[in-house]
Amino acid sequence: ARTGFAEVVYCSNKADEHLLNIYERLYQEEGQVLGTRASEKQYLLVRERLPQVQYDPVSRILKIEKPDKLHEGRVAVCTAGTADISVAEEAAQTAEFFGTYVDRIYDVGVSGMHRLFSKMDMIQKANCVVAVAGMEGALASVMGGLVCRPVIAVPTSVGYGANFHGLSALLTMINSCANGIAVVNIDNGYGAGYLATQMNRLALGKDR
Amino acid sequence: ARTGFAEVVYCSNKADEHLLNIYERLYQEEGQVLGTRASEKQYLLVRERLPQVQYDPVSRILKIEKPDKLHEGRVAVCTAGTADISVAEEAAQTAEFFGTYVDRIYDVGVSGMHRLFSKMDMIQKANCVVAVAGMEGALASVMGGLVCRPVIAVPTSVGYGANFHGLSALLTMINSCANGIAVVNIDNGYGAGYLATQMNRLALGKDR
Amino acid sequence: ARTGFAEVVYCSNKADEHLLNIYERLYQEEGQVLGTRASEKQYLLVRERLPQVQYDPVSRILKIEKPDKLHEGRVAVCTAGTADISVAEEAAQTAEFFGTYVDRIYDVGVSGMHRLFSKMDMIQKANCVVAVAGMEGALASVMGGLVCRPVIAVPTSVGYGANFHGLSALLTMINSCANGIAVVNIDNGYGAGYLATQMNRLALGKDR
Amino acid sequence: ARTGFAEVVYCSNKADEHLLNIYERLYQEEGQVLGTRASEKQYLLVRERLPQVQYDPVSRILKIEKPDKLHEGRVAVCTAGTADISVAEEAAQTAEFFGTYVDRIYDVGVSGMHRLFSKMDMIQKANCVVAVAGMEGALASVMGGLVCRPVIAVPTSVGYGANFHGLSALLTMINSCANGIAVVNIDNGYGAGYLATQMNRLALGKDR
Amino acid sequence: ARTGFAEVVYCSNKADEHLLNIYERLYQEEGQVLGTRASEKQYLLVRERLPQVQYDPVSRILKIEKPDKLHEGRVAVCTAGTADISVAEEAAQTAEFFGTYVDRIYDVGVSGMHRLFSKMDMIQKANCVVAVAGMEGALASVMGGLVCRPVIAVPTSVGYGANFHGLSALLTMINSCANGIAVVNIDNGYGAGYLATQMNRLALGKDR
Amino acid sequence: ARTGFAEVVYCSNKADEHLLNIYERLYQEEGQVLGTRASEKQYLLVRERLPQVQYDPVSRILKIEKPDKLHEGRVAVCTAGTADISVAEEAAQTAEFFGTYVDRIYDVGVSGMHRLFSKMDMIQKANCVVAVAGMEGALASVMGGLVCRPVIAVPTSVGYGANFHGLSALLTMINSCANGIAVVNIDNGYGAGYLATQMNRLALGKDR
Amino acid sequence: ARTGFAEVVYCSNKADEHLLNIYERLYQEEGQVLGTRASEKQYLLVRERLPQVQYDPVSRILKIEKPDKLHEGRVAVCTAGTADISVAEEAAQTAEFFGTYVDRIYDVGVSGMHRLFSKMDMIQKANCVVAVAGMEGALASVMGGLVCRPVIAVPTSVGYGANFHGLSALLTMINSCANGIAVVNIDNGYGAGYLATQMNRLALGKDR
Amino acid sequence: ARTGFAEVVYCSNKADEHLLNIYERLYQEEGQVLGTRASEKQYLLVRERLPQVQYDPVSRILKIEKPDKLHEGRVAVCTAGTADISVAEEAAQTAEFFGTYVDRIYDVGVSGMHRLFSKMDMIQKANCVVAVAGMEGALASVMGGLVCRPVIAVPTSVGYGANFHGLSALLTMINSCANGIAVVNIDNGYGAGYLATQMNRLALGKDR
Ligand SMILES: Nc1ncnc2c1ncn2[C@@H]1O[C@H](COP(=O)(O)O)[C@@H](O)[C@H]1O
Ligand SMILES: Nc1ncnc2c1ncn2[C@@H]1O[C@H](COP(=O)(O)O)[C@@H](O)[C@H]1O
Ligand SMILES: Nc1ncnc2c1ncn2[C@@H]1O[C@H](COP(=O)(O)O)[C@@H](O)[C@H]1O
Ligand SMILES: Nc1ncnc2c1ncn2[C@@H]1O[C@H](COP(=O)(O)O)[C@@H](O)[C@H]1O
Ligand SMILES: [Mg+2]
Ligand SMILES: [Mg+2]
Ligand SMILES: [Mg+2]
Ligand SMILES: [Mg+2]
Ligand SMILES: [Mg+2]
Ligand SMILES: [Mg+2]
Ligand SMILES: [Mg+2]
Ligand SMILES: [Mg+2]
Repeated sequence: ARTGFAEVVYCSNKADEHLLNIYERLYQEEGQVLGTRASEKQYLLVRERLPQVQYDPVSRILKIEKPDKLHEGRVAVCTAGTADISVAEEAAQTAEFFGTYVDRIYDVGVSGMHRLFSKMDMIQKANCVVAVAGMEGALASVMGGLVCRPVIAVPTSVGYGANFHGLSALLTMINSCANGIAVVNIDNGYGAGYLATQMNRLALGKDR
Repeated sequence: ARTGFAEVVYCSNKADEHLLNIYERLYQEEGQVLGTRASEKQYLLVRERLPQVQYDPVSRILKIEKPDKLHEGRVAVCTAGTADISVAEEAAQTAEFFGTYVDRIYDVGVSGMHRLFSKMDMIQKANCVVAVAGMEGALASVMGGLVCRPVIAVPTSVGYGANFHGLSALLTMINSCANGIAVVNIDNGYGAGYLATQMNRLALGKDR
Repeated sequence: ARTGFAEVVYCSNKADEHLLNIYERLYQEEGQVLGTRASEKQYLLVRERLPQVQYDPVSRILKIEKPDKLHEGRVAVCTAGTADISVAEEAAQTAEFFGTYVDRIYDVGVSGMHRLFSKMDMIQKANCVVAVAGMEGALASVMGGLVCRPVIAVPTSVGYGANFHGLSALLTMINSCANGIAVVNIDNGYGAGYLATQMNRLALGKDR
Repeated sequence: ARTGFAEVVYCSNKADEHLLNIYERLYQEEGQVLGTRASEKQYLLVRERLPQVQYDPVSRILKIEKPDKLHEGRVAVCTAGTADISVAEEAAQTAEFFGTYVDRIYDVGVSGMHRLFSKMDMIQKANCVVAVAGMEGALASVMGGLVCRPVIAVPTSVGYGANFHGLSALLTMINSCANGIAVVNIDNGYGAGYLATQMNRLALGKDR
Repeated sequence: ARTGFAEVVYCSNKADEHLLNIYERLYQEEGQVLGTRASEKQYLLVRERLPQVQYDPVSRILKIEKPDKLHEGRVAVCTAGTADISVAEEAAQTAEFFGTYVDRIYDVGVSGMHRLFSKMDMIQKANCVVAVAGMEGALASVMGGLVCRPVIAVPTSVGYGANFHGLSALLTMINSCANGIAVVNIDNGYGAGYLATQMNRLALGKDR
Repeated sequence: ARTGFAEVVYCSNKADEHLLNIYERLYQEEGQVLGTRASEKQYLLVRERLPQVQYDPVSRILKIEKPDKLHEGRVAVCTAGTADISVAEEAAQTAEFFGTYVDRIYDVGVSGMHRLFSKMDMIQKANCVVAVAGMEGALASVMGGLVCRPVIAVPTSVGYGANFHGLSALLTMINSCANGIAVVNIDNGYGAGYLATQMNRLALGKDR
Repeated sequence: ARTGFAEVVYCSNKADEHLLNIYERLYQEEGQVLGTRASEKQYLLVRERLPQVQYDPVSRILKIEKPDKLHEGRVAVCTAGTADISVAEEAAQTAEFFGTYVDRIYDVGVSGMHRLFSKMDMIQKANCVVAVAGMEGALASVMGGLVCRPVIAVPTSVGYGANFHGLSALLTMINSCANGIAVVNIDNGYGAGYLATQMNRLALGKDR
Repeated sequence: ARTGFAEVVYCSNKADEHLLNIYERLYQEEGQVLGTRASEKQYLLVRERLPQVQYDPVSRILKIEKPDKLHEGRVAVCTAGTADISVAEEAAQTAEFFGTYVDRIYDVGVSGMHRLFSKMDMIQKANCVVAVAGMEGALASVMGGLVCRPVIAVPTSVGYGANFHGLSALLTMINSCANGIAVVNIDNGYGAGYLATQMNRLALGKDR
């Protein structure tokens, strides 16, 4: 934790034995564990050893969290559509695990832009905004044109055809002519939640 | 003109002799000529033979047009930025050559969305809208979410880095989650002006 | 329905609960629902709540439609091969749901061009033509060279090897040297049916 | 000439000294030389040493040919547009250098398909057909659907935007659903002329 | 059969009913049927209606063939490795169905080039050579440097990693600096067998 | 300036007249102007009208700045090599224009990692770090593994061959397994300087 | 074994009969067999015929090895993460099969660089280093900056989103600005183990 | 020189002042300097300050070398064509600068394979082989099938069309089914010469 953050487990493709060992070790060292991209099967496996572990099938987060955690500051996590919610939840729950307060504003993409406008007041209050969008990913550009805090753009693989599994949304976000857009990998909700926490901590005057 | 449109000359890469022959032939047959992607040098060449020829260095259109042409119906040509204007002018002047009335609404992209909203009344009156945008090309999605007529989306090669010479904007437009977006090739203002004319004629009850 | 079209459900990847809620809400609000890319399993799910729902396994459309709907104007939906029919049906049934009259002309690609020529009279009568083709997608170019109304080109993912899941057909259509070709995403029959309806309404003098 | 063909010089990027040496050596050994992709400057260079050398700026072929060469058999070289003629001439002149009789049928692409149909009788007489096309390259598919001899498809880099310097036409031709399409590299007129000669020789009962 | 070849069925993705209809129709019209890319399941389906149908699980060819068919001329079908044999068999059996005599020379790629050299005499006798190779596809170049007849190069999707499902082999073959290489789509054994038959017929003086 | 930042001019491709108008207008409205990607020629043009304008040929920034501007907070701008300095200067000078204090730490990439380690103390004091790198772009990953504040990664087009004009570095940075990496477009120093300013302001408790 | 190495079996996609034949033949000829990319199912198949065969599900190596094999020289096989271990084991066990002594140093990527530094002494003793890494693949660059012997870089397909199944890591390694980086195909542990053996033998003064 | 090699200057894009400083510093520290990718103009610049500097326009190497340098061991540098020689010379002269003995074997690609076979004896004596090839790059595979020492494969950007500036040759080499192929970046002669030196030193028992 030289970087001020607990180690996080990327569960995907981990062998059962490795996974168990790391959950046990981290739980002993830190009293809590955050894992991402876990499967139902891995949940059942870990639960046998650590019965207090919790699993959310939407975000695929598998965690043991300390009770009564404080959530400070303010971060907004927004999605263009409902199919982007699983990635958004990975972002939101990661940020919350690290002590960040999160507002969720879902389904406010360009095909329902009036819904976005009705939420602008809440969004403007955040220290930074996470914009999660697939298909053409225009939400990040629209958001960047409206808010003055950093926008963390997460392209998702939602879509078909020439979306090329998220490449289209990634290119949209990287090329945005709006200012203040920070891009992470396709479907990388975890990375967005981590960055959002770093920015929120800056605003809180922490981590110096 | 089996398709109800005069033949148009794509000047780029044409040998001098070929270019002169085709301008003379078309002028004799039709009394007017429309050429796209012409260079200054080609203008000087053709002018020696056909002194009434006109050249616009922005759209790179080289034409002889019949006087007092009527412009009917209504089409809106919009751009995200000022660097997209040359492609937009190719679209607008092509449509006008084919007898279409055109409203120009430039520089209304996501980094200046309030300007777009102030023009929505005029845009809503058009039979179809041409949306010209480079970089991430989000204008087409925003427009598609606001108007009920077809939107002809023209990606431009404006931008740098991961815009891949217009590919980024093309993918954005092809993957748009807004409805009613018809896409043409990168920088293909001509094709957009042609399609806009076809749609405008449908609305005028022509060409049946 | 600010855009003059009822909201349409993209069923793919929707959670069961979300799907049911949206079908029920839309049915109450509009008395009809159109959903695309639905699975057999989603059909069975929705049928339990809304027994009047209808499912077509070819187009994968899941809908409740008002009886005695009028189909006006005229649109032609054409395919190059038989494997393109599922995408074509998504286009045709979408257009019909929105009140458009549709002629179906299937299996008229370049390996059977005489069949295309024998149907040209019917095709010329349409307000616009939807050309659905996979592999190299040459149908759109051939069609664009023959008809004077707009051609909506739908690349499909049919093919193998260097077709790259429809990219080849998409590039063919975007680069067509024929005029009046409007391109939508790979396998996007829905988008084509929507655009065809918009153009058909222009010809009917509707939506002003 | 183990393969029954004289060595051919690919002039592009050759150092002056290397170029001169190879022209002199080949002229001495064979009494004739064929070079492709030569520049005007290389022509002037070689002409000083070998004054009988001939240069065609369209095909960029630089050659010394034996007089009274016989041209046997029959091959058709066709183009979609006029901008494809330089590649077609590289093909035609290569085939002629190797003793093949060539019919040229230019500018018969999908935007002028009636011109193609009016030439079908001549094309059907060829032992094989070279189809040269840029942009979307649909000519190869149309040709493959009409003739029963092999079609050698040459994609060209003619076009702009999403043609990706000929990649679009290459993919069209490789994915053609017509039968009997043999594809060569983008702008590779030389390779097409060589293959056409091989096929023509098969028909002549030569090279056994 | 305007092109001198019976119609061939591309079985992949065909609905059961469509498949049965076409096999019955073609069998009645021609007395024989050739189908490619058929599954085991499709074999069982067709066998119920047409018990004489034959299925080869390697080439995935499903056919009814006339007895005592004559095989004329000479074509060589070669592979780089054993994993390429299924594609090679599609080529060989297609050519045989159309009356061509085929020599099979398998597993002679660059990692066993001595085996290739020991077969050169037989290969040199063919009217054309089909070279089937995956991974880097160098066999086509090696073959093109050794034989004087046309080489039909078939890239296969055999390999992993940066082979990109056959793209690597396709690019190798399209860029070959050897002469006389005609390329078809990735895994397109059928197309290669068809082209090989066309070339073989040229040599036999047929099809004029 | 709804977003708390003055409007910035992207000079590239702007027509002379447009450029002059915008510099004059902004200077009148704000008393200062920041332009990026300006050419020497544009500098001379603007200088005639606004003699106080300043041009830096390395960063290509063309600006009029208010005297005695305060630089607050702390941001580190680092490069992997010396060829990345022009992009880094665009970032640093943009941040400075917006009132940010900047430390420059250049030429500390993986081939000279000991130089990086010797500067870690200074880097750790920054509110955020801008990591500018071309070729394989590994600096961002190394930096992300060492600091706990956000790292803004700027891929550059420096390199050759399979760097694909910066795509390689972009992919490296987007896929980094280090945490807290925010990526902007290839060569987008401006965007990085803007984001760095936003983060610095968060730390300063500004802009709420 | 003209190249001084026994023939190795690439099991993937081999038909059962072919696989059995080759294992039996090689076992008879060499007294040992090395196979890569074998499935559990192939293991059971071969075991019936050759009961002494051994299978490792991690590396997917299926082998019969001579007892008491000597391992000479010294090679280091390193990974960035734990998910890269299967590829690393393919490399290590291949090298060991060919008589090379291997040190394994796993999980020393940029997110745990202190672990790498603690192992540098051991790594510096190797004749060459195999660096196995997925995601952004920065380990190869870091390693290349620290050791003076050749580094064999193996990109893996570990990661998601814009890693494009290993392409990102491949490009990183190919573009490395560190010196002495030799790259093999994505996930090609076998090739790396082979090259490492060749280099180790050079150091041992063998194979001359 | 922690890695046992003197620092080398990558001259491309270096500012004049930077270039002069580094040449002077390195010359003072080491008594010699090696620079790659230098222009004629940079040569003239450096020569004014360091008159003993030498420039080779083919390899673009700009160096000051110590007299009477010993060249030990043995490395073979081979090319497929003559256009690949500039890259090969960068490799050869780099290796020589570092004290390696180099055999040059040029123009032995697949279109002249007999020339390759006539040189195999010399090639087999090398400690490693550098194979430089553009277009389809098959030389590396052919070489890998014939020699038992490591082959360092250098793809070049020589070619046109679908060679994609060297990508085709790079993919060929990375996917080679021959063993013992180590790949470097497109046109990276320097990297190949460096690796060849490392391998040669292993064989000489140096650098331990
Ligand atoms: N969903 C995710 N995407 C990317 N990185 C992750 C994700 N979840 C965890 N990580 C990072 O991956 C690393 C853990 O990898 P591992 O040691 O393989 O579990 C940690 O540095 C995490 O910060
Ligand atoms: N800018 C343009 N982009 C695409 N096609 C064009 C353009 N200008 C003209 N065309 C079309 O290109 C064809 C003329 O090509 P050509 O015969 O080579 O002059 C006509 O069918 C035009 O409709
Ligand atoms: N335009 C061309 N495209 C591709 N290959 C060519 C071309 N012209 C000549 N060649 C071939 O290139 C080789 C000559 O290359 P070189 O030895 O570099 O002159 C010969 O094998 C020719 O057959
Ligand atoms: N394996 C194959 N690959 C490509 N085309 C094929 C293949 N098999 C048959 N065809 C062609 O595909 C067409 C049949 O398509 P369909 O009407 O869909 O069965 C015919 O023109 C065949 O010549
Ligand atoms: Mg903003
Ligand atoms: Mg709309
Ligand atoms: Mg038309
Ligand atoms: Mg045909
Ligand atoms: Mg040959
Ligand atoms: Mg960090
Ligand atoms: Mg090193
Ligand atoms: Mg070898």
